[in-house]
Amino acid sequence: MSTGEFSIIERFFTLRRNRKDVVVGVGDDGAVLAVPTGHHLVVSTDTLVSGTHFFPDIDPEKLAFKTVAVNLSDLAAMGAEPAWMTLAITLPEIDEDWLDEFAKGLEYASDYYGVSLVGGDTTRGPLSLTVTIHGTVPEGRSLRRDGAKIGDWIYVTGALGDSGAGLQALYAKETGAQWQPFIDRHLTPKPRLAAGIALRGIATAAMDLSDGLSSDLGHILEASGVGAQIELERVPLNPTLIELVGREQALQHALSSGEDYELLFMVSDSDNGALSTMMAETGNQAICIGQVVAGNSITYRQDSEVMSVASTGYNHFEELQ
Amino acid sequence: MSTGEFSIIERFFTLRRNRKDVVVGVGDDGAVLAVPTGHHLVVSTDTLVSGTHFFPDIDPEKLAFKTVAVNLSDLAAMGAEPAWMTLAITLPEIDEDWLDEFAKGLEYASDYYGVSLVGGDTTRGPLSLTVTIHGTVPEGRSLRRDGAKIGDWIYVTGALGDSGAGLQALYAKETGAQWQPFIDRHLTPKPRLAAGIALRGIATAAMDLSDGLSSDLGHILEASGVGAQIELERVPLNPTLIELVGREQALQHALSSGEDYELLFMVSDSDNGALSTMMAETGNQAICIGQVVAGNSITYRQDSEVMSVASTGYNHFEELQ
Repeated sequence: MSTGEFSIIERFFTLRRNRKDVVVGVGDDGAVLAVPTGHHLVVSTDTLVSGTHFFPDIDPEKLAFKTVAVNLSDLAAMGAEPAWMTLAITLPEIDEDWLDEFAKGLEYASDYYGVSLVGGDTTRGPLSLTVTIHGTVPEGRSLRRDGAKIGDWIYVTGALGDSGAGLQALYAKETGAQWQPFIDRHLTPKPRLAAGIALRGIATAAMDLSDGLSSDLGHILEASGVGAQIELERVPLNPTLIELVGREQALQHALSSGEDYELLFMVSDSDNGALSTMMAETGNQAICIGQVVAGNSITYRQDSEVMSVASTGYNHFEELQ
Repeated sequence: MSTGEFSIIERFFTLRRNRKDVVVGVGDDGAVLAVPTGHHLVVSTDTLVSGTHFFPDIDPEKLAFKTVAVNLSDLAAMGAEPAWMTLAITLPEIDEDWLDEFAKGLEYASDYYGVSLVGGDTTRGPLSLTVTIHGTVPEGRSLRRDGAKIGDWIYVTGALGDSGAGLQALYAKETGAQWQPFIDRHLTPKPRLAAGIALRGIATAAMDLSDGLSSDLGHILEASGVGAQIELERVPLNPTLIELVGREQALQHALSSGEDYELLFMVSDSDNGALSTMMAETGNQAICIGQVVAGNSITYRQDSEVMSVASTGYNHFEELQ
């Protein structure tokens, strides 16, 4: 059994420190977990497939970190606190060096974000990773997509487009040091967990930006039955990115490239003060980029003029660009 | 977006009836779920990969059912009641007929076992399915692998080897009607959920038989730090299987083929009466096949003579047989 699935799971995945709310961890038929009283469980799942979501030669340590981070970003969007995760990993072969590096990244993310790995499955096949992440949120306090109301202000938690520029740099095999921050942003996204938790009771709706602003905003609008007006000059862009690729291309990345993993959220006019107070007290930042309006579509404006914007977010069933 | 991942998930996966404890279901960044007070959450995850765990031309309705069933079997082994699941599905292409059939099987399993689909991810790539299943168990009442004690009696909940014989028939492309019950047993396993729940407070240790008795029993023994003596003549075999392949081959399937998804469990001598009462009251059945002994290995005996048995369970990193 030295290369069997039980030994892989045990060797790589059971030496971690478990949270105190893990009653039974890896190694049984299932994990037994204690959700705190007065809290709901929040669950989300994401798959990353080699060649679709990452380059086959990706640094396994970074891959592990990113797999956890993109799942945590969903918890952030729900206002949940991370607790536990399971990992289903499909591998074409046993490469111990690869697995050692992967385990290192997993352990780092697990420790950094306080999320215990409580179960897993290892199977043979083309490389892919599915994490199911679990968090908790006080009852009735989760952030949702369907609460945006006409008149709400629309915010994002940080500069958009950097990750898309990083992906483009990876495709173009750019080696210049000026691209590294963008590549880093693409490979090691930072989920906005603190912002999500701080937005409980303030945001009327929220989601994380995984597919590009135009595509993701569309989901909130559809769920909430409203439209939006976005002021393009307010969309936060990294000044360095503008220098590198020009403002138009930077904006295109922000709207369509995805994987920024910032939060997009709405706040009622009456809670705008509460948002400012929260930001001042917690150090979280957000930028207002527009307003919720009647209708079911997005109007983009630049210096008060209506603009046409191609609203093609990332879609895994289209060809990779 | 007509063939995009959002529409697939929504079209196939949101029309189901949700349990009342689903606060937010499919369609947001995460599901929000209410674990009953005084209960622990039980989580398990299993991946099925095309070509490794099922034939690529498998009936998609049966595939969906089996994917849910093998995950539910892990809940059964923990004594948990099913509640929710997430499904990460990787597809090489959009085949609407295939997806319709798959959705039918998923809905059937979901309704039959009372488990709501609360989240999913759809990605492009070689066909594979990862279900993460969630159940609940009263605090402190979950079944575990590490509680077997010397002197405990060893039980299984039903005849072993049928699924392995069914798989062999599929490989051999057997078309005779006599093989159909075994093929059915392989394709549509029935998780022993009722038995698992009834065994709370009675079994000292339990797991489900997915890799064959000899391999799976080894895991309980290792977790519990004990050995076992198995009386081969007591291992329950299907009389029809014995007629078809002979007793020796039937026993070999029982010990090594796996995928029977019966429960293997231990009961202390003093709780043997409680087990009999439970079986009489609930209609659950179990057969005693041996006893826990000191040591760390399995001794097989046939008519009081010690036998040698190849203890090779199914291992996904070995070649398919």
